[in-house]
This record gives sequence, C-alpha cells and structure tokens, in this order.
Amino acid sequence: MSGIVTTGEKRLVLASGRAHPVLAQEVSEELGVEVLPMDAWDFANGEIYVRYGESVRGSDAFVLQSHPASINTWLMEHLIMIDALKRASTKRITAIAPSFPYARQDKKHRGREPISARLVADLYQTAGIDRMISVDLHAPQVQGYFDRPVDHLMALPILSKYVEGKYGQEDIVVVSPDAGRIRVAEQWAKRLGGIGLAFVHKSRDPKRPNQAVAKRVIGEVSGKTCILVDDMIDTAGTIVQAVEALHSHGATKVVVATTHPILSDPATERLRTSGVAEVICTNTLPVPPEKEFEQLTQLSIAPLIARAIRAVFDDGSVTSLFDGEV
Amino acid sequence: MSGIVTTGEKRLVLASGRAHPVLAQEVSEELGVEVLPMDAWDFANGEIYVRYGESVRGSDAFVLQSHPASINTWLMEHLIMIDALKRASTKRITAIAPSFPYARQDKKHRGREPISARLVADLYQTAGIDRMISVDLHAPQVQGYFDRPVDHLMALPILSKYVEGKYGQEDIVVVSPDAGRIRVAEQWAKRLGGIGLAFVHKSRDPKRPNQAVAKRVIGEVSGKTCILVDDMIDTAGTIVQAVEALHSHGATKVVVATTHPILSDPATERLRTSGVAEVICTNTLPVPPEKEFEQLTQLSIAPLIARAIRAVFDDGSVTSLFDGEV
Amino acid sequence: MSGIVTTGEKRLVLASGRAHPVLAQEVSEELGVEVLPMDAWDFANGEIYVRYGESVRGSDAFVLQSHPASINTWLMEHLIMIDALKRASTKRITAIAPSFPYARQDKKHRGREPISARLVADLYQTAGIDRMISVDLHAPQVQGYFDRPVDHLMALPILSKYVEGKYGQEDIVVVSPDAGRIRVAEQWAKRLGGIGLAFVHKSRDPKRPNQAVAKRVIGEVSGKTCILVDDMIDTAGTIVQAVEALHSHGATKVVVATTHPILSDPATERLRTSGVAEVICTNTLPVPPEKEFEQLTQLSIAPLIARAIRAVFDDGSVTSLFDGEV
Amino acid sequence: MSGIVTTGEKRLVLASGRAHPVLAQEVSEELGVEVLPMDAWDFANGEIYVRYGESVRGSDAFVLQSHPASINTWLMEHLIMIDALKRASTKRITAIAPSFPYARQDKKHRGREPISARLVADLYQTAGIDRMISVDLHAPQVQGYFDRPVDHLMALPILSKYVEGKYGQEDIVVVSPDAGRIRVAEQWAKRLGGIGLAFVHKSRDPKRPNQAVAKRVIGEVSGKTCILVDDMIDTAGTIVQAVEALHSHGATKVVVATTHPILSDPATERLRTSGVAEVICTNTLPVPPEKEFEQLTQLSIAPLIARAIRAVFDDGSVTSLFDGEV
Amino acid sequence: MSGIVTTGEKRLVLASGRAHPVLAQEVSEELGVEVLPMDAWDFANGEIYVRYGESVRGSDAFVLQSHPASINTWLMEHLIMIDALKRASTKRITAIAPSFPYARQDKKHRGREPISARLVADLYQTAGIDRMISVDLHAPQVQGYFDRPVDHLMALPILSKYVEGKYGQEDIVVVSPDAGRIRVAEQWAKRLGGIGLAFVHKSRDPKRPNQAVAKRVIGEVSGKTCILVDDMIDTAGTIVQAVEALHSHGATKVVVATTHPILSDPATERLRTSGVAEVICTNTLPVPPEKEFEQLTQLSIAPLIARAIRAVFDDGSVTSLFDGEV
Amino acid sequence: MSGIVTTGEKRLVLASGRAHPVLAQEVSEELGVEVLPMDAWDFANGEIYVRYGESVRGSDAFVLQSHPASINTWLMEHLIMIDALKRASTKRITAIAPSFPYARQDKKHRGREPISARLVADLYQTAGIDRMISVDLHAPQVQGYFDRPVDHLMALPILSKYVEGKYGQEDIVVVSPDAGRIRVAEQWAKRLGGIGLAFVHKSRDPKRPNQAVAKRVIGEVSGKTCILVDDMIDTAGTIVQAVEALHSHGATKVVVATTHPILSDPATERLRTSGVAEVICTNTLPVPPEKEFEQLTQLSIAPLIARAIRAVFDDGSVTSLFDGEV
Repeated sequence: MSGIVTTGEKRLVLASGRAHPVLAQEVSEELGVEVLPMDAWDFANGEIYVRYGESVRGSDAFVLQSHPASINTWLMEHLIMIDALKRASTKRITAIAPSFPYARQDKKHRGREPISARLVADLYQTAGIDRMISVDLHAPQVQGYFDRPVDHLMALPILSKYVEGKYGQEDIVVVSPDAGRIRVAEQWAKRLGGIGLAFVHKSRDPKRPNQAVAKRVIGEVSGKTCILVDDMIDTAGTIVQAVEALHSHGATKVVVATTHPILSDPATERLRTSGVAEVICTNTLPVPPEKEFEQLTQLSIAPLIARAIRAVFDDGSVTSLFDGEV
Repeated sequence: MSGIVTTGEKRLVLASGRAHPVLAQEVSEELGVEVLPMDAWDFANGEIYVRYGESVRGSDAFVLQSHPASINTWLMEHLIMIDALKRASTKRITAIAPSFPYARQDKKHRGREPISARLVADLYQTAGIDRMISVDLHAPQVQGYFDRPVDHLMALPILSKYVEGKYGQEDIVVVSPDAGRIRVAEQWAKRLGGIGLAFVHKSRDPKRPNQAVAKRVIGEVSGKTCILVDDMIDTAGTIVQAVEALHSHGATKVVVATTHPILSDPATERLRTSGVAEVICTNTLPVPPEKEFEQLTQLSIAPLIARAIRAVFDDGSVTSLFDGEV
Repeated sequence: MSGIVTTGEKRLVLASGRAHPVLAQEVSEELGVEVLPMDAWDFANGEIYVRYGESVRGSDAFVLQSHPASINTWLMEHLIMIDALKRASTKRITAIAPSFPYARQDKKHRGREPISARLVADLYQTAGIDRMISVDLHAPQVQGYFDRPVDHLMALPILSKYVEGKYGQEDIVVVSPDAGRIRVAEQWAKRLGGIGLAFVHKSRDPKRPNQAVAKRVIGEVSGKTCILVDDMIDTAGTIVQAVEALHSHGATKVVVATTHPILSDPATERLRTSGVAEVICTNTLPVPPEKEFEQLTQLSIAPLIARAIRAVFDDGSVTSLFDGEV
Repeated sequence: MSGIVTTGEKRLVLASGRAHPVLAQEVSEELGVEVLPMDAWDFANGEIYVRYGESVRGSDAFVLQSHPASINTWLMEHLIMIDALKRASTKRITAIAPSFPYARQDKKHRGREPISARLVADLYQTAGIDRMISVDLHAPQVQGYFDRPVDHLMALPILSKYVEGKYGQEDIVVVSPDAGRIRVAEQWAKRLGGIGLAFVHKSRDPKRPNQAVAKRVIGEVSGKTCILVDDMIDTAGTIVQAVEALHSHGATKVVVATTHPILSDPATERLRTSGVAEVICTNTLPVPPEKEFEQLTQLSIAPLIARAIRAVFDDGSVTSLFDGEV
Repeated sequence: MSGIVTTGEKRLVLASGRAHPVLAQEVSEELGVEVLPMDAWDFANGEIYVRYGESVRGSDAFVLQSHPASINTWLMEHLIMIDALKRASTKRITAIAPSFPYARQDKKHRGREPISARLVADLYQTAGIDRMISVDLHAPQVQGYFDRPVDHLMALPILSKYVEGKYGQEDIVVVSPDAGRIRVAEQWAKRLGGIGLAFVHKSRDPKRPNQAVAKRVIGEVSGKTCILVDDMIDTAGTIVQAVEALHSHGATKVVVATTHPILSDPATERLRTSGVAEVICTNTLPVPPEKEFEQLTQLSIAPLIARAIRAVFDDGSVTSLFDGEV
Repeated sequence: MSGIVTTGEKRLVLASGRAHPVLAQEVSEELGVEVLPMDAWDFANGEIYVRYGESVRGSDAFVLQSHPASINTWLMEHLIMIDALKRASTKRITAIAPSFPYARQDKKHRGREPISARLVADLYQTAGIDRMISVDLHAPQVQGYFDRPVDHLMALPILSKYVEGKYGQEDIVVVSPDAGRIRVAEQWAKRLGGIGLAFVHKSRDPKRPNQAVAKRVIGEVSGKTCILVDDMIDTAGTIVQAVEALHSHGATKVVVATTHPILSDPATERLRTSGVAEVICTNTLPVPPEKEFEQLTQLSIAPLIARAIRAVFDDGSVTSLFDGEV
C-alpha cells in the first residue's frame, strides 16, 4: 500500500492573553509547561496585534483569557488569538474563559434586546474553537449556546474546602442572597455535610405596594456564622444588603463566598465597610491592588483549570474529577 | 433597464400537523383563513407521509403543531412538514410549537447528558424554519438556542384575566410551588394588582438529614384563596403536594393555573382527588376526554397565537401586543 | 519547543439504543467489546432521556440503533444519543442505522412533498455524526444525501451464502418481484455462479386499460426453485403476489430472501399462508416473537457490522472486505 | 414610528451564459424580456471573466446555462455568473441548468469514487443560488442533493404532443431501451392514451455465461411503430442496438424520443445509418450544424422554461402547469 | 386558494451606535428619517447593553457605527446591535462601517499571525448582517472576505471636489506618500483633469546598506502645490516625512487629503507643526475637539452614505452613483 | 473502562490530477512515496470520472493539481478528486494548487463583477479540503479567502539561488516591471545582499493627456545586468515592454525571473525575440515542448512542495523552512 506511515503524537500547548498573566503563570506551573511565547501589542486606535513565537502546527492548543474590564478588548484579543491558532494549523483549539463574557445577558427580558451570551458563543465558534472550558456559568443553559463540547467547571470544591477548614468548627449556615440562587446554596449545604440553609427574600407588603422593599431572612441565622454564596460580585449592592439583613437578624458573623470577583466600583468600598468578616473569591478575574481590601481572600482557580486541561488532553473524565457535579 | 416589474404581494398560509386539530381549527377561525389542505398518513412502521393539497409558492407559511404524547412522532411530523414547505418554495416559514418539545432538557445536569432542547432547536433550523413561535418556554434561555427570531408568547394575560373575573372579589394570594418558580409568581402578583405572594419550600431539617422532606409554606395563606401557578403539569406530583401543604396551612381554597396540561398518568386521578377547587389551563396541548375531570377548565390559546401570526405577517409589534412582557 | 508531548491513542466504544438489544449484543460479542453502559428512559409524554455511564472523551464512538416501529421514537433516541456523545467530547462519531429510516421517501414523486430521506440525513449530520454505516439502502443515491463518508454495506454475501448452502444443489433461478429491482437480482445471479434470472412484471392489457393488472413472469421458472429477492418486506403484498405468480407459472419451490424484515401487519399472516418454502432475512430489524412464523429464517447481520466497525476503527478498507461490491 | 415606507416591487431579470445563445434568445422572447447585457471573455489560459452591463440590485434573477462539451468550462462560467449576481445584491437567484451537469454520477458504484452530481449541487449552492430549475434529471433523487427548492420540469408533454400529432394515427407502442427506464416508458404510455408498452432486455443465456449478450424484446412490437424513449443520448450505442433489436422483432418503424441530445461522437453517424425513422429531441443542449442529420428533429424547450420562470416569479404553481407530474 | 393576501411594503430604519452621534445625525437628516430610538449603556465591567425603543419587525435596517479608539468596544457594540436587530425580525440588515475595523491586518505577513480583517468580516456575518457598506477599504480584497454584497464607497469625489474648488487655479500635482499607494494617486490625477503625478520613494543607497533611508521624490514638484493623498492618517509619521521631502524638493505648498482621520497621538502635534497648508479629511471617524488643529478641514461623508442607503433601499444602482468607480 | 484501545498511526498519501504528471512524479520522488494509483478519464462531453486504486481510509491525503489551460477542466478534476477522498474517509485533505486558479480576479474593479478567487476558495472548501498549499499567490490577501490554514510558499529562494550562482559576479540590479510589484522586487534585493532596485513606470505627459504612454525607468540600470521579476508571465506583453525600456536605458543584459510560466500565446514568440538573455521560471505550471524557447530555464518547484508536505505531515514548522518569509 502506498504512503508513509508513522506513529501519531499529541502535543499540548498553552497560550494566554494579556488580561491576567498571573493566572496564566499559575496554570502553566501546575501543568509543567511554559506559556507559549507571543508578541502582542495595541495600535494607537486600540487594534490588537498578536503573533506566536513558535510553531503550534498539529498541537492541541489551550488558549486562556480572563475577562475583566474593559471586557470587549479582552474578548476581541481572545478571538484574534484563536484565529491565529486556527490559521497556524493547530489540531484542536480549546478556549478557556474562566468567567464567561456577557453571561448575564442570556435571554431576552423584553422585546428588541440581544441575547449577547449566545452571540459571544457564536463569535468563539466562528473564530475557530473546538471546545470551551469555563467556570460557574451564570446560567447553566449557556452550555447549550455551543454546538460543541463545553467543560463546565465548578469552584465549589475549592471555596468550600477553604470555608470548611477555617469555619468548620463554628455553627454555620449557608445563605443565598435571593430566591434565584437557592439551588447553588443547596449544593453548598450538601457539600458542607448537610448543614442548614437560609436565604434573603425581598418582600413587598401587599397592603403598601408603593413602599420600599424590605429584606427578610428565611431560615435560622441567629447566633450563627453565615456563609453567603453567589456566583459573582459586581458592584456588591445586593450582597451588602444581604449582609446587613443577616446581621440585623442576629447573625454572629457573615462570610461571603463567590467565584467571580468583578468588584466594579464601589464594590470594594461597600464590602470593606459592610461588617463582613471575610470575602472569599477565586482568581478567575484579576483583582488589582487598588481593589484589594483587608477582608478579601483570593484562592487560585489555577489547579482546577490545570487539571481540566490535563484531563482534556489525556481524554480523561472531567466529570469524575469534580465529584460528578459538573 | 431590462426586466419585468410587478408589485410585490404577501400571502399568509396556515398549515397544521395532526396532533391537535381542534387548536388548528380555532386559530384558523380567529385568523379567518382556512387550514391548508394536506394529505398525511403513516406507513405501517410509523414513517409519516405528508403532501400539501395546493400551492404554497412564495407564501408566508405558518406551520402549527402541538406536542403531546407520543411526542417524537409529532415532532418528526412537524419537521417533515417544514421540509415539504421549504422544497415547495415558500418565502418564509414560521413554526409554531405552543409547547416546546424537550424544553425541560435545557442543560447538562451531569456529564455525558445531551442538551435535548438545543438539539430540537437545531433540528427545526435544519428542517428549514425562518422563525419560531412558542408559549411559555420552560427556561427563557431556550430562545438563545435559536440563531433566528423567536416570538415567546405568554399565557399569563389569558389565565389571569379568567382568574380575576372569577376570583377577583376573594382574598387571593399567588403561590409558587417551589423556589425556582417565584419569578413567574411575581409576574402574576403584579398583574393581579400587587397582591400577596407565597411559595412552598422543601425544607430539610439539618439535624435529621436522612428524614423525609417537609413542605413548608412561606408567606400568608391562611384564610385565603390560593392561586397556585406553574408552567406545566406533567404527573402532578409536586402540585398536589403543594395543594396539600396550602390546605394544611389554612388556605380556604386552592386554584391551580398552568399553561401546558401534559397531564400524564396519574395526573388526572391525583388532581381530581386533591381537594383543589379548579385547575385552569390552556389548550397548548390537547386534553383527551378520558383525561378530563370535573375541576378542569381549559382556556383557548388560539386567540393569542392568531394575533401573533397576524402581527408577524403584518410586521406589527408582537411586543406591544403582550404588554411589553414578551 | 514548548508543550507536553505524548503518543496518540485510539479507543473504540460501542453505544446502542434500546430498539434492538439483541443485535447490539451480537455486535458487541463479535467485536469483543462491552456495550457502553447507558441510562435511558422515557418521560410520561414520550420525551427520551439518556446518559452514558462512563467517560467517552476522545473515543472513536460507534452508536448503533435499529429502526423498527415506532420508527420516530427510535430515530429521535438515536439523535439524542449522538448529541450526548458530541457534548461528551468524543473524537469521532459513527452512526450505524442498519435499516435507514425513511429510505423510501428519497425523491419528490409529485409537487409539495418532502424528501424525508434527505431530511433524516440532515438531522443526523446536525446531531453531530462524522460518518454513517448502513445496510442495503433502498436507493444508492441516499449516500449522496450526506456530505461525509457513508459505508454502504451489503447483506448479499450473507444471504447468498445461506441460500447456496441450502439450495445450491437444486435447479435455481433468481427472481425480481418487479422491474425496478432487476439490478439487485442480477447481482444475486452473478454471485450464485451465473445462474438464470427472471422477474415478475405487472402488465396491463393495452386493449382493456381499466382492467386489473396481471402478473406476468418473464424468464424460465417452470420446474425450478425460485429465489425471490427484495431489499425489504413491509406488508408483503407485492411479494406474496409474486409468489403466487411464480407458482402459477410452474415454479417448484419459492424461497424469499430479503435484507430488512419490516413485517408490518398483515405480512406474517400473508407469508405464512402463501405457500412460500422459506423466508430468509437478516436481523437489521428485530422480529418480535408474535411476528415469527414457521418458514422464517433470520440470519445475523452482526458479523458484517462488526467487521465494518473494526475496519473503520483500524482504517482498513471496507471496500475490500465486501468483494469490491460496496 | 420611525422609518421610510414604500410599496415593494419585484423585477425579473434573465441572464445567460455563452454555451447556448439560441436557447437564451428563445426563452427571452417567450418571456418578453431582454437577456441581461453581459461582457464575458476568456483569459488566454481559460480563466473566464464576466460583468453585467446594468444594475441587478433587488432583482429576481434567473441565470440560464446549457452544459454541452466542454462541460467544465460552462459549469464554471455558470458559477462565476452566480457569484457576480450574489455580490451585485440581487434578491433571489434561480439557476437554470436544463441538462444537469454530471447527473449520471449520482452514486458510488464502488468504493473510492466521488458522487459528482452531489458535488455539483453543492458548488451551485456555494456560489449562491436560492433555487434550481432543471429538466428530466437522470435520477429524481438528485433533487435531494439540494437543501433548497428544485423545480424539476419534464419534457414529456412537449415530446409526446409532437409524437401524437405525427404518429398518433399509426399503431404505436412505447419502448424502453432497457429495464431501468421502464418507469419513464410507462409515463409515455399513459400520456399517449394507454397504449402498449415494450422494452428491450439484455439477456444472458445462463448455460453459456461467457457468451455475448443478446437483446431480447419484451412485449408486442411486430408490425408496429415503436416510440423508443430515453432521457439522453450520448454516444447512442445502447439506442442503436435497441433500434436493431426492434427491427429484427418485426417493428415497422422506430422513432426515438429523448430530452437531452448530447450526441457525442459517433452518435450522429450511428443514428444516421441505424434505420431509425426519426430522432426527436429538445434543445436543452445545442446541436451544432456538423452533428445534425436528416432524421433529427429538435423541439424547443424554451416555452417550458419560460413558463416555469414566469410561474416562479409570479409565485404560481409549477406543479399545476405540468399536469401534476413534476 | 387558501390564504390571506396583502400588498408588500418596505420600511427603512436607521440605527446608530454611540461612537459618532454627529455622523448619525447628519445621515439621518440627509435621508429624512429619524435615528431609531435605542437604550444603550455599559455595565461597570464594560459589558454593553442595548435595546431598541420601537418595533423593527419586517424592516430594511441600516445600522451605522464608526470605529475610533477604543475600537474593540465600538465593534462589539455594533455586533450586539446587529444581534438585537436579527432577533427582532428585521427583514434585512445592512451594517455600515465607514472605516472598516482591522482593515490593515488583511494578510499574514509572517507565519502564526491572524488575518484579523477576515475575522472581523466573519464576526459581522455571524452576528447576522445581510450586507455591508464601507468607505475606502485599505485593500479592495477585503470585499472578498464577505460571502455577501459589499458596497464599497469612495470618498474621492467629495475630497477632490473640495480640492478643485480651492486649489484648482494653482499649479497642482498629486503625490503618493509611497509606492504602494500610486494607484490611488492615479485616480486622483485622472479626476482632477489629467494633472501631474509624483510620489515619495524610500531609497536605500546600495553601496551603504546600513545607512538611514532617504526620502526621494519622483516626479516634478518644484514650484507646485502638492496634493498628498492617502486612505488613512494614523500617527502621521509617514505623511509628515513626505511633507518634508516635498518641501525640500521645492514644493510651494503641500495639502494633505485623506479619508479616515484616525489621528492617534502624536498625529495632531506632528501635522500642526509640519508646515502643511491644509489637511482635508472626511468624518468617517470623529475628531474630538482636543485633536483638532488649525489646518484641519473635515468634510462630511454623510451625503455619500445617505445616498448609498437610499439606493440600496430603492434597489437603485450604487455603481452609477459613484461614476463607475466602485 | 469499556472499549478497545490501540496506538494511533498516521499515513501520508499523495494523489495527483492529470494536468502535470511530471511535477507529481518529482514530488513523489522527493518524498519517497508512490503517487496514489487512480483511474481517471473523460466522458465524451467532458465529464470527468476518477477512482482511487487503493484504500485511503484514515490517511493524511495531499492532492496535487497544476492549473494550466484549460484551467476549468483541471480545477473541476481537482474538486472531484477531493470529493472522492472525502467520501473515502481520509482523515485530512490538503489540496496543493501551486498556481492558484483565478488568483488575478481577487477584487471587484467595478460593480457587477464576481470575485472569482474567493469563489474558487469556497469551491475548494465545499469539496472538502482541510487546508491548502500554494506558491506565490498574486495577492497575499487570498489567504484570507479561506477560513482554514493556507501554507503560502515562496519560490524566491529557489529562483534567487539560481540567479546568484549564475549572475552573482556581475553588476546586478533588481527591476520591477511596474509600480505594483515593487514590494516583491524589494524582497529580491534584500535576499541578493542589498543590491540596487529599479522599476519601470508608465508615465503620461500631463500636457499631452491623449498621447501614448511612455515607459520610464526609475533607478540606475545603465551598464548593469537587470533581474526583472514578476509573479507570473501570461502573454508577456508588459514584460517585453519592460525589457525594451531597460535596454533603451542602457542595460547591459536583462534576465527575467518569474514563478508561474503561463506563457499564453504569443508569449513564447515575444520573449524569444525580445533580446532577453534568460527567462527563469519554476514548473508550477507545465511548459509543453512547443512553448519552449532557447532562453527558457525551468527550475523544479518539487523540492519546495515536498518539504512543505513533509513538514505539514510531521507537524513541523513550515515558517522556519522558508526563512520566516512565509
């Protein structure tokens, strides 16, 4: 039979955008692989230029980008990097967007709105990805915006392990900041050993419909350490109101746990002065020094991402890695 | 300049599958247009054959199908009808699936599952639709599973108008059967004039983790008429437990309102004997005579669908038709 | 050069729908590989749920489904299984539909009809297959409905080997039940060593155009054992008329050979009482016990499918396996 | 409401390639519309250049090309013309390929072959057509190679009307040149008023397998005028053998009727000397003067094509135009 | 025949992003149509939200965005606006990007680079445009990055008319700032009545290869008014060097004419002090007050865009509008 | 875990069209692999038939075709060969078109023209290629007409090495035949060690606009050996005029170097009698014996193509192979 026959090989490469070099470095160290060298700079009008410093031909490429403000720049850089990988003959491209851009715009609330989360999924697919890895999508339905595999990782094991180590001996209760997030709080309660659950409820007095909304706490929190959980903290308005409600309902201590620290102004100021004992987050997004505050603890998401990359590369089960909760 | 020039015309045609001829007939009468004649029959092994009885060339075609059991048959018939319209040179095809098939499978709960709602959206697009009309999607994110327009209609105005006419003078409260549906209940409360809101909560006693789950009612229901709302009733297990919890919390009367009456066994038996005062639904799905029961009231969704079709055909605003709540 | 390098591996997995577990078991044994564990069940309204029991990441997946009545259910299950495989990061997906659904609707006979066989091909491609394996397509043009590889297997070697072993010593002739199938009969005749060929012809007497159609046999059958061949038997009307015509033309014995035993009612009754000596078929479709009859012989298609799977997995030539007749 | 509103208009334009200007002229006259002016010439290496002479913006464009030898040139010109129409902002593009290129390569006869007819359909769709009009496709399944509308016209009414007018008083019988074309012959027989049917059958003597194939005529032809029908005549080998067989079976006269006169060498010589009384064809393909011969009659397909264009433009039923036989 | 028939209508709407409201206002006034009302604001992390204030159903929508710094934000806003139009059931969407984003990255200069201009074209098509209007693309090949119509407008008539009116009586010569732009200069020379042509050439002395590059002027410029033309001015480095070279070769006066005033720092400072007599540009990009300088003249591109919109809406010829130079 | 696991393998196969068998043979020898056996012949009307002689299942297929006149035939053969490879289950298909068809039609010069180079790129992608290899594209933007990898090889190292060996001791200067090709000439000058550069400029006397165009030579050529470079020579009109202009400006000797020898009539005659010392080209296109002439030297492009194939197969860097100039 005609032809030249050789054994197939697989080569993993890790590329990273410029939004969050620390995270890229951590993932690189966890994996034991250098970040792919890349030239990247901006034209004066904001146009981005990238070029990889070595061949990626035939490789299994993982391209990581974080999406803090200004998010459109980092998204566009991610897409351009993917285009360059595609045209450079990689074998497979996996984008890693630890905090998925525009995840909150996942439906039309009213007519004549976009569904920007679907648009973003389409832009990634058009640029050329074969698969996506993300952490704690705002709505799990976003997975369905892709017609190819999405590995949806959960920060819960990382966050809850830390909480358990530090507050496990106290009388703790998991609290959701509103009714819409109860399901996440239930997963926390289950993982922390079947502890109690509460949530904060916006209630309107039906007899005074025009009155301001009161925050009511449902469940037992008096005398307890409250673990207040949410997927992201943006301006921290809702969270800080929940902290106040919990304190006014007799909570001894309030600890906030979240995956994505967007921390837009005035989040830092609000949280610092809210009376919260600790705010635990991951580093899916960078927290610049000027946004840090005393109570903030940032845990690295890098080990989780690195394990996912390795499992994808090795065709191992990502599901099994994360306790079947993916 | 070369060429033959004429004035453009638009022609609306309404086609219907065989799953729910009564609804098609009602929509046809509302619109003032005959249902397109169609031959349709099954091969002995279940293969479906369809052929339209007159030309649809250049038409703006609306093709309606309901999706009761056995749902795969009716879905496939819908797809085949769309293929035939596409190949017969219609100008535009709008599928109407009042109760969207597989809407509950809208995400991966665990690894190695399908996202069947997305698959169904893709099958419709592959068959050839230009747009979709549906009523009360289980998750609004399903709109984003399409890359083309979806008119997402709401049955709330129809159901709430009936409730208001019949129970408006009583002391009523809107109840959600679980935490996940509170947002729908809020829309009901707002539309009924800012009345009270309650919901049923599955609570686990943290000290007895292996104990059965108790149904707790959050909010004031004692002495009131409860309007228990949900998007669909399948086997009616959750609803009937909620009815019981409301009665045991002192509710005077419980009325159930829902959009999609799936009513799989043993829903009819359960509801008939549950002590519920009335079960109000629409006819997005047919309720065969053997599934009817004394307390059941079925309101026609046909006027809503007909108005949407007409607005789409006339390029009118569907948003404005439905109070900006689309 | 950056990166982690390892040797590539290939892993074959075999998944199966619920339509024909016996065939899946046979293929599994031929291949020496377990059928992939899968949870599958139906919602009360017929919606299907599936989930694979172990990781398929990176695998070369073969997903087998048979398509007996009710065919739309099994087709939809097949599509859902493919969606789940795609989202679970398989490397390649080969669907195996031994008896291709809607194969008979392969063209528009008249205006305003669908081309359902093309639609089905598109649905499979949309769900996510990379390639298709099927047996004895009703029209070979159906291969062209796919824009990717189709391995079109032939049952002829299996059927003819059995016929040769059992009837090879008799004076046999191959008979086509109508003019449209003569080409298949020719392949039979060639394979059985250049034996005689006949066919049954519907003839209308031109002088009496409204008269019933007579069945005329073209070719020598008197005193012979007739092997009557067709690709499928549905209600068996045509075949039984052909059996009668052959007997009335002096055939000593009539043996029917077919690939796909649809056997819709009243096929079993008709064949049992038709005077046919034997009906030989494969098990591309299951024959439930109540449809079996004394003269029926079902040969397993599993060895053929297993060899094709293995050849596809090993990048061997499927063409060469089947005598260049693919 | 914002915006500028005007009445919609439709404009039909007819473009034509250079392969068969006479046909374009005839269609143009039937329609009462000038052929769109176009510059077209060839680079020295065969690259084709085209440019339309006036605006086609917003028009309903019909682009006609015939496909005689050298077929690849005319196909490529057709594709380039479609690309230019697409980029010039036409509203809709209908390609007209009266004799579909590569129609005979509609399946894989053996492994490692292309399916060129499907490839050609894909090339047309890629270039930008919205719909296709063709005449007497070699296999009707080719319609399914498109995922958009195909109007499949039949030359039968034109050919049979001529035959009826000239030979209707004689004792005629319709003959198929082989078993594969019997269905076409049946349509002829039906249209000519239920007259007799015969066909020529290649028969091998089973006892002398290596012997040459004899042509046997099935059906009554002795003393009759035979109308021998086929979809195309290429080198005329099969047809001339059939003519001989009919004469040797006592036919009084043989008339050949076909749609596509490919007439590759040595067709003209063979037919001229074959003893055939008349060869009737259409002008889906041009017959250059050097290929004409005394018995050849070419009927214009232009009225059929013009009526189809007009019906498509007016959204009339093409099905009804052609007796429901489309 | 079934159905409801009405006369078709067309409605033009004009939407605009937030990058350049003055241009949108000018186009709106030229057209005599209000800009579509739209809510648009940014989340704290830069995510953009848009919603149209009235129905666009069935409309022929033109959506204008300018692309100054920071370009990725305005590009993303454009894409999101297109997604919202698509989902709101417009009939056709034409994007207008007067200065096409990333137009300079139109090829791979070296391996492992992206082709960002193609990526941007793909992003627009994915978001949902049917056609694109742009002005003076950096390379005309970018039109080919779209598989749908592009109207490529030229600013030359606007710029040259102004130049002719003001400098027509002087002894003028057209100058290209480098060899790559000579073709544009030729079009200028032709339009200004066949006047002289010159260009600036970077020359290296072959005997001193490491020496700095000298700017040599080819053509007669001594004692003349030089019209120095280019498609865009970014940081103005090349242009200012050309101005100096022209002066040093005896030019009496240098006037710069360009389409796209990017004017990134330090362009304003450089041009102001360069000795240039006048810098003429269009307003495809906004020039904020702090970037204006005494010699700058900005001509409105709005009449050109408005005429193109109107011609597209009316299916008129855009080619003829612009002297066949499109 | 279920499944059969084996080590992956890669197999390179080389297929070739019939346009330029000598080139295929040379590439085959360079690679050390036989050209894949293939049956290919033409129907009488020009339809092409191909079939590969052995299995290509799972292979990494490279399919080479040259594109001399009549170019449409060879393009279509290439597409059909790709379709056959795709349907035969190759793993990856790389088309090699050393001289890209229709490369000169890479933009719309005026309205209502096609962009045929983009069309050709789309046809290749539709037929099924995964990647493209070409040599010296007329415009580098053509790479962007593909949405997948293109390896753009340069003949410059081959041509310049030959020139250096033969003329390196003379006083040489690189000349571009017009302003549009200066960039290529600059690459030549750089590679030959920073030698001088000149070009021929069409100049119109502004005072006599209707006068014929004169050829002016810019740069020092007197007394030198001129290396006149261009990407292709078609009818040689421009080149021969440049040769004359150089001689009349005092050039001692003129040598022409080009990649693609189209050599359409009357190129051979013109060049032979032009006074040119030597015409150096590659064999991306075959030069038939009747087009050869005394001064013609054809260098093989096969080593370059073979190295690119090997690098692609081995996932090596093609960029590095060619001095970073890709």
